[in-house]
Amino acid sequence: MSASIVLLSGGLDSTVCTAAAVRDHDSVLALSFDYGQRHRLELEAGAVVARHYGIGQLVVSIDASRWGGSALTDPSIAIPEPGAEGIPATYVPARNLIFLSIAMGVAEARDADAVVIGVNALDYSGYPDCRPEFVESFRATAALALKRGVEGRPVAIETPLIDLGKPDIVRLGVELDAPLHLSWSCYRKGPTPCGDCDACQLRAKGFAGAGIPDPALDAP
Amino acid sequence: MSASIVLLSGGLDSTVCTAAAVRDHDSVLALSFDYGQRHRLELEAGAVVARHYGIGQLVVSIDASRWGGSALTDPSIAIPEPGAEGIPATYVPARNLIFLSIAMGVAEARDADAVVIGVNALDYSGYPDCRPEFVESFRATAALALKRGVEGRPVAIETPLIDLGKPDIVRLGVELDAPLHLSWSCYRKGPTPCGDCDACQLRAKGFAGAGIPDPALDAP
Repeated sequence: MSASIVLLSGGLDSTVCTAAAVRDHDSVLALSFDYGQRHRLELEAGAVVARHYGIGQLVVSIDASRWGGSALTDPSIAIPEPGAEGIPATYVPARNLIFLSIAMGVAEARDADAVVIGVNALDYSGYPDCRPEFVESFRATAALALKRGVEGRPVAIETPLIDLGKPDIVRLGVELDAPLHLSWSCYRKGPTPCGDCDACQLRAKGFAGAGIPDPALDAP
Repeated sequence: MSASIVLLSGGLDSTVCTAAAVRDHDSVLALSFDYGQRHRLELEAGAVVARHYGIGQLVVSIDASRWGGSALTDPSIAIPEPGAEGIPATYVPARNLIFLSIAMGVAEARDADAVVIGVNALDYSGYPDCRPEFVESFRATAALALKRGVEGRPVAIETPLIDLGKPDIVRLGVELDAPLHLSWSCYRKGPTPCGDCDACQLRAKGFAGAGIPDPALDAP
């Protein structure tokens, strides 16, 4: 009997990641964050994906907009046009560090063996906290922080997408029958994806590369 | 001009730590967490200490009681009697990992150079996430997670109390004229410290060891 916590934002990557967690574990709890993101539809998509799989979902609120610093949480910072150099304005300071830390707390409190996160290094939008070296380092730090680590049974961190580019993620999603039509990637408010932002363009590149139409765009 | 974020719970250690931060930095912002702790007086003490120093305070809410696993956040788990072996029931899964991670996000968003935290290894109540090896490892992980780290100017993590026992912390507090009378250590609800819990006993041991009466107990 293996139990896991999967970080589910409701985007393409985390939806495919949830499909992998459901494949690999007997019991899965989805963990989502309400961090004041302006793309609220992502949060709703996460709830719908969890319901699709019949798994529980824990939504933890942290109001990152109170300290700001990102175009995703501060309405006064514009969503950048795609193709900008360096770390983009959609970077949320310490986001994955915070999310993984809370996931570790939830995993330990609920005696889960693993945390599953959909970070991927190839098409990672330039965020430093999506890189494999960050995940490796976090793993060691968490083992030192947790009671389970001290007891010699650290919580595993699984990254089933870490070596995949966006087209491979789309292919894996199709192979696992993931509900890609329910996922939401766009950084903007909706009600339909803008098609322009980095997240929309990466997603489009993924489906185009896989030679598969995006089922979210076919929805009425 | 150096700016720092100090983690201020309102207990003895974080109050002395705030005094050290005010000594060492031109600008200090106190960061406190409302994590559903049953000892709410601690949170109020933090606000009073911040006011004493005339520094800003940011209170971030994370409802750790929703995932439970600790006597400090789950009313169904009793506060342990002192002297129990191993990691006590007051351990909150991943607490310092989560608090430091959020502090890093706040530091980066506000362009602060350092995060100051009052962990100390000698009288640390058996919590794994107070040990120097945890802090060392976290420092490396945070440098990989943050934009500032990638840019070669990582946020420093300062631990002015790390090598001190409780009597030394009391002595340092007196030396720095820290408002020890405003701090609250007890794990229980109050209105006066219970005197029995681990936190009360460690605090009493600190004042006794320093040969100084606890000013919080003299208050009317």
